[in-house]
Amino acid sequence: MATMKALVYAAKGQPRLEDRPKPTILKPTDAIVKMVKTTICGTDLHIFKGDVATCDTGRILGHEGVAVVEQIGDNVCLFKPGDKVIVSCITSCTTCANCRRGMPSHCTNGGWALGNTIDGTQAEYARIPHADGSLHLAVESASDNAQLMLSDTVPTGYECGVLQGKIKLGSTVAIVGSGPVGLGALITSQLYSPLQIIMIDLNEKRLATARSLGATHTVVSGPNVVEQVMKITGGRGVDAALEAVGIPATFELCQKLVAVGGTIANLGVHGTKVHLHLETLWDKNITITTRLVDASSTPMLIKLVESGKILPEKFATHTFAFKDIEKAYSIFGAAEAHDCLKVVIEF
Amino acid sequence: MATMKALVYAAKGQPRLEDRPKPTILKPTDAIVKMVKTTICGTDLHIFKGDVATCDTGRILGHEGVAVVEQIGDNVCLFKPGDKVIVSCITSCTTCANCRRGMPSHCTNGGWALGNTIDGTQAEYARIPHADGSLHLAVESASDNAQLMLSDTVPTGYECGVLQGKIKLGSTVAIVGSGPVGLGALITSQLYSPLQIIMIDLNEKRLATARSLGATHTVVSGPNVVEQVMKITGGRGVDAALEAVGIPATFELCQKLVAVGGTIANLGVHGTKVHLHLETLWDKNITITTRLVDASSTPMLIKLVESGKILPEKFATHTFAFKDIEKAYSIFGAAEAHDCLKVVIEF
Amino acid sequence: MATMKALVYAAKGQPRLEDRPKPTILKPTDAIVKMVKTTICGTDLHIFKGDVATCDTGRILGHEGVAVVEQIGDNVCLFKPGDKVIVSCITSCTTCANCRRGMPSHCTNGGWALGNTIDGTQAEYARIPHADGSLHLAVESASDNAQLMLSDTVPTGYECGVLQGKIKLGSTVAIVGSGPVGLGALITSQLYSPLQIIMIDLNEKRLATARSLGATHTVVSGPNVVEQVMKITGGRGVDAALEAVGIPATFELCQKLVAVGGTIANLGVHGTKVHLHLETLWDKNITITTRLVDASSTPMLIKLVESGKILPEKFATHTFAFKDIEKAYSIFGAAEAHDCLKVVIEF
Amino acid sequence: MATMKALVYAAKGQPRLEDRPKPTILKPTDAIVKMVKTTICGTDLHIFKGDVATCDTGRILGHEGVAVVEQIGDNVCLFKPGDKVIVSCITSCTTCANCRRGMPSHCTNGGWALGNTIDGTQAEYARIPHADGSLHLAVESASDNAQLMLSDTVPTGYECGVLQGKIKLGSTVAIVGSGPVGLGALITSQLYSPLQIIMIDLNEKRLATARSLGATHTVVSGPNVVEQVMKITGGRGVDAALEAVGIPATFELCQKLVAVGGTIANLGVHGTKVHLHLETLWDKNITITTRLVDASSTPMLIKLVESGKILPEKFATHTFAFKDIEKAYSIFGAAEAHDCLKVVIEF
Repeated sequence: MATMKALVYAAKGQPRLEDRPKPTILKPTDAIVKMVKTTICGTDLHIFKGDVATCDTGRILGHEGVAVVEQIGDNVCLFKPGDKVIVSCITSCTTCANCRRGMPSHCTNGGWALGNTIDGTQAEYARIPHADGSLHLAVESASDNAQLMLSDTVPTGYECGVLQGKIKLGSTVAIVGSGPVGLGALITSQLYSPLQIIMIDLNEKRLATARSLGATHTVVSGPNVVEQVMKITGGRGVDAALEAVGIPATFELCQKLVAVGGTIANLGVHGTKVHLHLETLWDKNITITTRLVDASSTPMLIKLVESGKILPEKFATHTFAFKDIEKAYSIFGAAEAHDCLKVVIEF
Repeated sequence: MATMKALVYAAKGQPRLEDRPKPTILKPTDAIVKMVKTTICGTDLHIFKGDVATCDTGRILGHEGVAVVEQIGDNVCLFKPGDKVIVSCITSCTTCANCRRGMPSHCTNGGWALGNTIDGTQAEYARIPHADGSLHLAVESASDNAQLMLSDTVPTGYECGVLQGKIKLGSTVAIVGSGPVGLGALITSQLYSPLQIIMIDLNEKRLATARSLGATHTVVSGPNVVEQVMKITGGRGVDAALEAVGIPATFELCQKLVAVGGTIANLGVHGTKVHLHLETLWDKNITITTRLVDASSTPMLIKLVESGKILPEKFATHTFAFKDIEKAYSIFGAAEAHDCLKVVIEF
Repeated sequence: MATMKALVYAAKGQPRLEDRPKPTILKPTDAIVKMVKTTICGTDLHIFKGDVATCDTGRILGHEGVAVVEQIGDNVCLFKPGDKVIVSCITSCTTCANCRRGMPSHCTNGGWALGNTIDGTQAEYARIPHADGSLHLAVESASDNAQLMLSDTVPTGYECGVLQGKIKLGSTVAIVGSGPVGLGALITSQLYSPLQIIMIDLNEKRLATARSLGATHTVVSGPNVVEQVMKITGGRGVDAALEAVGIPATFELCQKLVAVGGTIANLGVHGTKVHLHLETLWDKNITITTRLVDASSTPMLIKLVESGKILPEKFATHTFAFKDIEKAYSIFGAAEAHDCLKVVIEF
Repeated sequence: MATMKALVYAAKGQPRLEDRPKPTILKPTDAIVKMVKTTICGTDLHIFKGDVATCDTGRILGHEGVAVVEQIGDNVCLFKPGDKVIVSCITSCTTCANCRRGMPSHCTNGGWALGNTIDGTQAEYARIPHADGSLHLAVESASDNAQLMLSDTVPTGYECGVLQGKIKLGSTVAIVGSGPVGLGALITSQLYSPLQIIMIDLNEKRLATARSLGATHTVVSGPNVVEQVMKITGGRGVDAALEAVGIPATFELCQKLVAVGGTIANLGVHGTKVHLHLETLWDKNITITTRLVDASSTPMLIKLVESGKILPEKFATHTFAFKDIEKAYSIFGAAEAHDCLKVVIEF
């Protein structure tokens, strides 16, 4: 039996590179792909903290990647061996009720499966179920690094932030958290021509990155952040407050920033409950949204990358060979200390 | 100077009928109306608890009513003395930025003013600012009691519940709270042909009323309410959970009832913060809305009352002469004990 | 080789019952179904007039039916032999760009194929490509006749008429043409609570049927039809005018009936160009839509039939054994003379 | 009685500068404005052809302008003498049913009144009815010429073209007609990040202007224009075809350019009926819209001009003193021969 190297969730806090059997076609809708590049997601770090109950130890992690199709099941129609593809973080059967209503994030035959409930993409090979609904043909005219960001980072910022936040022509926007997902929201929000995009973070370097990527204002988190945002917005607050951190403090901050009639879009992965101040918000006509990415925007995002309208390759700050992925985990786990946004893992 | 009787927020807990000067035209957009019927809102009870910071003692309360126009300012175009009108709970100047974007609830020259920041309709006469935007011609072919419910009760249930909750063809709906506003949502939700409307309340009699008004299921609040709703909905939960009570427990209940992709629409007036369980909801694709009624649906609701499609006169369970309004407050303050939904006050 | 009886488009004007080979699985996504009931569509009559260029002679016609699954390909997941199903008139692969954007009517691997570009359902057996996307499980609790109407007739009235026409709470609606598709629009428009539904037809009996199915007004086509509709609508015209005939005269009529800001939704199959009076309509803020049915509403329509909210079995006025389908064609071809709406063909 | 100079629709084909009485306040909602700049619209040319039945001879023309408020009626709240304002081409009472449903173009107390049913802005002074709903405060930080284009030209391109055409992220767009309104659509469509904007015109210079303003492709009208657009769009046609000319040939062209599922938005003023090819379009899922501008986007457009996101001052190619307005009419009447887009008339 052929084996391969794979990054395994060995135990809490222990990413371990192990030998594993190379995956094989199990169903006619499967494809086997040979990984070209993968990356590590903040959610992978949550798994190592034991926060993700659905992910058992022993699992090969990873739900992002650029790859080449090696083998297809009898019923894969849209791809053939040799095709270069983007692996979507969401597995979509395309036929269940949730897929049909545009919510593959909750596909009853898939959803967030890779690197969670089935083995993932931080390995030399991966089995992709429902390949027709879960892969996208990569394009020649864009870099692998740009397309790697379309597996999860940019669609999450776009779908969960920009779309759910109803960012539109003339909006004022605050994005709390200038990490990869927040920056994903930043670069895609500009496609809708908001008037102000205020980036908020503790880290000055990340704010500088945000400015270089189009933020109209940046605010360092601190005691007077609300005051500063109110000053920028003429006392109104923002039409859309995007929470891209995942802790109670930042979610509460969004409640103070949002204007009458505005929206709080949650992008963060939360491990605990938060306070919602209905005593002040009940009559403020606000909307709060939560969302797991559907990754249904990826075909559009590919076109945008191809046309140069977004440049997500800029998120890739560090590159590692796959054999060094354990080290990549250690760097990414202390990302700010290393001025790291996204790590690229090359095979 | 002419005087009149008026119900005044004398002090916490003290509704008092007092003599007050009859109001006069202050601005050319004002109308003076002679009240025909008014009613008491749950929000009025909140004022007497001291929950509404914007309302000072000494205020004449009341933001609902059917009346006859007595006098108009020079610039009132749509009404003339003698017209029978519905007084909207929301005062709308029609020209500020919030009015123009369809949010008169936050009209910068009005909003919820009557019986809050200016004297209201629980008096023999009332001054209605911005009359063209804040009154609606009553129709002959519907009863005063039905139209009285269009000042606030039914628009609140409809706009804050049905519209914000995105109730639509085939939806499953839970309405938590079978009081007047919850019932307002119940009768208007049916106009959108949902498949299931589950009414939840502690009070069996109110649930019986709900059944008679079209609820497909009723559930008595209690330890296994979530289990019952899951059974009714085949384990999915509801597409729309409407919170029509205003306490933390019911808002938390809604979080347990809502299906993936569903909406929690808040209708209740809340006096305290609540817990939001983002640790379970962050990836459930839900939407939470808060809303002060705009009352912009009133012209449509008048047509629906006129055509018999909704019958809100059924909410009127008790009738009092205006001189007995203090007693009416006492009955409405203990509404469930008296099988009371809405009290009608006649002048 | 097993043979079966099938209704064939032998030549212009010649429906002929012939012996044909029983279909077999050609692709792993195919299902073979044994027909239980089928019906004849107005479009089938168009084929016999030679109006449908995509349909060659020799074709087995029919794109509607209730059937039992006899055999499935290796990759059919949602159905198994013995399942009773509704055959959708639209074949949907669920993965092409058009399917993914909610437009299976233009599925690049299907669309309107049955009885058009591939053999159809007016036969003892039919091969259904992309079965997972093109069949729907029938329910026990509704009649076969009701479910037969969900293959095409009711979804067309609903999707192309009610949805495209943006019929909503309080709308005024005119439906021009009281045949099966117009009646399909009539019964589904009521789910949205319009205030007026005016049915227009030359045939008094069809208008009587419309009244019994919920039309609030009926108008016999004639020189003063515009005047009558204006009288009914207080001179405004209608918010939605549905063209359900397919000739220039009725499309021009819709242009005279539509109110400022209203919509003309075309449901008819047109064989010739029409006049559009932009010289009067350019500033009237109207919308005109054309649409081939997607049949994506069928799962919802099944629930509505099941719950008794719509009763499309009433469209079935005549029943024939399959051996008499040539006679059924002759009756349906002169439907009005026979007071015929839909013919049911039983196997 | 004070007099002023005014451009009058003397008779077909005869623009004439005449002495007229200076207007006075007639209603408390009126304002009298002193014109600073005005311009001539293509619609004014239509009036001189006798195409606009609502406009009688003797009328002072003009529905665009930047002005200074000279006097206000008792009930004008939002403006005071000395304010610099943009005069909207649409008069909006803000309270009628059409204004309240967001359609002031059909305000029952206004609509397109200026220079049509009441005297307009091609005069030293103008009376603006319903001033609160019909004027907008000009901003210091943008030029008069830019703001002059916000009276009608840019809102028409934006509202009737971009919004009605549903131009959105990733759209492919064809704009037929590279005159001021087509260019207004061009510059505002880019705010929505379409992927392709194909400008079509007979005039090479206007196409060069379009390229300089952001058109991704330009096509000279001619026998193979459809072929070229199909080549640019990979054979699909365009998601949005905007008709900005107003003749049958260009409207028919749009029918050939539009993709399945696309929209034809009509911006042109049409004097005659056109052919609509339902025999090919009935099943193509297209939408056609007509629209008179509401000018409700002007406040947003002011912000966009202020922030430099759009630069409509580039449309102003010629400048005349008001005393030479007859000459300006003659140049604008042969605009292409003079490489003219918009003429600015200075007072």
